[in-house]
Amino acid sequence: MQNTTITRALISVSDKTGIVEFAKSLASMDIEILSTGGTASLLRQEGLTVKDVSEHTGHPEIMDGRVKTLHPKIHGGILGRRDIDANVMQKHEIQAIDLVVVNLYPFAETVSNPDYSFEDAIENIDIGGPAMVRASAKNFKDVTIVVEPNDYLTILDELNLDPSGISYATRYSLAVKAFEHTARYDGMVANYLGTMIEDAAHTCHDSCTHKRSSFGRTLNLQMVKKQDLRYGENSHQNAAFYVEHNIQESSVATAKQLQGKELSFNNIADTDAALECVKEFEEPACVIVKHANPCGAALGESILEAYSKAFKTDPTSAFGGIIAFNRELDEVTATAIIESQFVEVIIAPSISDAACKVIAKKANIRLLECGDWQGQLTHEFDFKRVNGGLLVQERDFGMVDIDDLTVVTDVAPSDSQISDLLFAWKVAKYVKSNAIVYSKDTMTIGVGAGQMSRVYSAKIAGIKAQDEGLTVEGCVMASDAFFPFRDGIDAAAAAGIKAVIQPGGSMRDNEVIAAANEHGIAMVFTGMRHFKH
Amino acid sequence: MQNTTITRALISVSDKTGIVEFAKSLASMDIEILSTGGTASLLRQEGLTVKDVSEHTGHPEIMDGRVKTLHPKIHGGILGRRDIDANVMQKHEIQAIDLVVVNLYPFAETVSNPDYSFEDAIENIDIGGPAMVRASAKNFKDVTIVVEPNDYLTILDELNLDPSGISYATRYSLAVKAFEHTARYDGMVANYLGTMIEDAAHTCHDSCTHKRSSFGRTLNLQMVKKQDLRYGENSHQNAAFYVEHNIQESSVATAKQLQGKELSFNNIADTDAALECVKEFEEPACVIVKHANPCGAALGESILEAYSKAFKTDPTSAFGGIIAFNRELDEVTATAIIESQFVEVIIAPSISDAACKVIAKKANIRLLECGDWQGQLTHEFDFKRVNGGLLVQERDFGMVDIDDLTVVTDVAPSDSQISDLLFAWKVAKYVKSNAIVYSKDTMTIGVGAGQMSRVYSAKIAGIKAQDEGLTVEGCVMASDAFFPFRDGIDAAAAAGIKAVIQPGGSMRDNEVIAAANEHGIAMVFTGMRHFKH
Repeated sequence: MQNTTITRALISVSDKTGIVEFAKSLASMDIEILSTGGTASLLRQEGLTVKDVSEHTGHPEIMDGRVKTLHPKIHGGILGRRDIDANVMQKHEIQAIDLVVVNLYPFAETVSNPDYSFEDAIENIDIGGPAMVRASAKNFKDVTIVVEPNDYLTILDELNLDPSGISYATRYSLAVKAFEHTARYDGMVANYLGTMIEDAAHTCHDSCTHKRSSFGRTLNLQMVKKQDLRYGENSHQNAAFYVEHNIQESSVATAKQLQGKELSFNNIADTDAALECVKEFEEPACVIVKHANPCGAALGESILEAYSKAFKTDPTSAFGGIIAFNRELDEVTATAIIESQFVEVIIAPSISDAACKVIAKKANIRLLECGDWQGQLTHEFDFKRVNGGLLVQERDFGMVDIDDLTVVTDVAPSDSQISDLLFAWKVAKYVKSNAIVYSKDTMTIGVGAGQMSRVYSAKIAGIKAQDEGLTVEGCVMASDAFFPFRDGIDAAAAAGIKAVIQPGGSMRDNEVIAAANEHGIAMVFTGMRHFKH
Repeated sequence: MQNTTITRALISVSDKTGIVEFAKSLASMDIEILSTGGTASLLRQEGLTVKDVSEHTGHPEIMDGRVKTLHPKIHGGILGRRDIDANVMQKHEIQAIDLVVVNLYPFAETVSNPDYSFEDAIENIDIGGPAMVRASAKNFKDVTIVVEPNDYLTILDELNLDPSGISYATRYSLAVKAFEHTARYDGMVANYLGTMIEDAAHTCHDSCTHKRSSFGRTLNLQMVKKQDLRYGENSHQNAAFYVEHNIQESSVATAKQLQGKELSFNNIADTDAALECVKEFEEPACVIVKHANPCGAALGESILEAYSKAFKTDPTSAFGGIIAFNRELDEVTATAIIESQFVEVIIAPSISDAACKVIAKKANIRLLECGDWQGQLTHEFDFKRVNGGLLVQERDFGMVDIDDLTVVTDVAPSDSQISDLLFAWKVAKYVKSNAIVYSKDTMTIGVGAGQMSRVYSAKIAGIKAQDEGLTVEGCVMASDAFFPFRDGIDAAAAAGIKAVIQPGGSMRDNEVIAAANEHGIAMVFTGMRHFKH
């Protein structure tokens, strides 16, 4: 396919970043510039010669700009097939528009302004812009469409390199971007209007402040491919990793890989699990994940201490695991890791140069730096896929602190037990349900994950502790949901558990509390459950 | 807000379903009809008086229909604010268009036709249609936009009931639908063009057949809310259940609830897990799920037998579980369930009337009928949410049959062991990793789920079998992934396992095979893993 020459450009942008320089460069190549409204004024201020769209069409801009480019002279100039439609274009005095530079009214910015009105929102739904963007993209064989300022340089580079014009590959790629842009735009509009439909149905009047619900009639989602993956959870499944636009929180999606083998599907999932858990802690912390579950977690004076304790919980499972920290990875901790175990991924907000050098000795280790997450918290939805549909929920931001705990037993937990209870509770939130976590000295002693009955999670936590030579006697226990029967408490007592944290709320809470009292166990209720499947 | 009168309608539809009757009704209310192309011809054939858009605008339809409605007379007629813009409309002889009935070129149908060309696809990207749809929706205060034939009746009903016109609530709801429609349309276009970008970049020529990759540059998704949920995985998380457009496969998303309490988030997730597992079997089968894992599964001569066996595996966990069948639920099986256990959800392709009556005795049980799934298989992607992104993969359609098995031990499995191995393998595919399933007589004897090291999954399967009084001696074992060490085989042998199915592929396969031979165990490799987290 041949390149397309540009003789005429239409420029109408809401985001004016870089537009003056771009237009000047185009003008210097003798490209005629059509423009409207604010863009035209700005370009004229800068000394450029600009033809108004209304002059070009012979029709004034009307209705406060609602109708200006929706005209056959514009859309014929964009959509005309340069080969087939040459005669009709001549007959109707339609001049070809070869480059369209448009970005849309800032709908998203408008509705994220706390003081916006519903009328502002509606007025900021762009009609003429998307029509030109879509028309240009459809006719990418003849037209170049630019919707983002960061593509201006590509266009200029190509024009400078080859005066015959813009290449097919670039035009095609920009056309895809154009439809991505309009799809996302209308998705945002549909999400916005759709979440207010209940209120709108009450036939509100002009001055009514529409209230939004969380879940609109449709869910419109656009994600951007970050990388193709070798395969999915298994080698017979193809896969890719997509990320949100404008990610607001340091996460596995923002992580920069400093060295190591390519990340796999399971690496990314496990890294997310480890990182989100370690984010719960203020103190230096380490979480080791295997098969989506923490197999060891601990706090320490330093991350070295935290790592050493976390590793001790279950060295067998930690083999080939994912390790996450909530502090910069330093040289001593990096050294301790590679001397202790085989590791697939290490992630931390930052990695010191000295630590990088240490890890470099093991070239396969995937080393990820995700940035600091303090003060960040995105409210994007959590999803769970089912065949034919998607379960959509708010992220689990719930967390209790010491003031939220209700002591329900005769014995109250000691200060150090409370510290361990809260630690174990935070870990349990990230262990697949049913989750039981045994802990002492802010270190996991046994993790019972993913069982269909709670008492087995408790048994597993005990068995694993015993197998690793750890002492359950004197530990505390966290349970992500209430105990339906007393058997879980009886089993815990037999293993030596001295304090329990759990949501409460069972029909048999009295029976469960009585069991704890019989065994002299201290128990606190959080009033909040943390199922995670 | 007041109703809006309709004096003039613009009708231009690709899907002509019901359009003649609708137009006739509008004409009988003295509403003027503007139309174009094929729609105009059809309405005239049916004896209706229709004004051509080209006559209305004074501008011919050009470029084979690429430019016909993109004209100020049309868009001013739609976008004009009846209050503010009355003068400008009069001045430019712009007549108000109060009802816009448009649906779009069939892009999706075009590209799903096996014989379509890339040029067909491009030509079927509608430009004029979405511009009118979006303009009408933006100006919903004055304009009614209809994009789906099944809304024609609503419009006629409202006009018949109240000649003053269409209500605010209806106009708003239709405007939301309009943006949902264009968002989905451009999402499809972006997905389509985006998955061909690699090929397009090779600067192919006109006759090049563009090849598609699976994962486009962006992922554009629209789902439709089926129901709001009381809450998500936990009560402090709001949630809703969304489903795909045009679901192609009977699933939890197609399920019709015949009785019982409202489905919860966890109910839906667990029902999906149970149903997708039971779909793997041709023979009458039952799967009981708790906390996203099968806690019992079995085949039988009848579903009654299958249920009785599945229940025996783990009656403790089955309490409050989800039960799925791959045959119609009959009266005897329904009776057996309510006599045996507390159950949250029962799902089957169909439910007999007699079974309905039995279940009706327990009013809380959620009884779901999902329809038959024979011959259906959707290729929609599977998703796994991570903070900031989405892991996207093909569904796990992998499955082996007897011919795919490689016997790697001195002893080969017997016919009945092969039958059990394949049964256990299918169940293991749906147990969270690491997954170990013990089985005998096509019944699960022990399920070890979700452990961070494989040997513990094996231990748990054994412990659970023992606790339920089931005999592991003589059972077979399935492992969803290879054994990294011989310890899993040693533990299995000690428990009495006589045959093993696993993918193979460990660096230490020889050590693992040697262990099996030492114990006189038969082992087969599938060459395919089924991680599921």
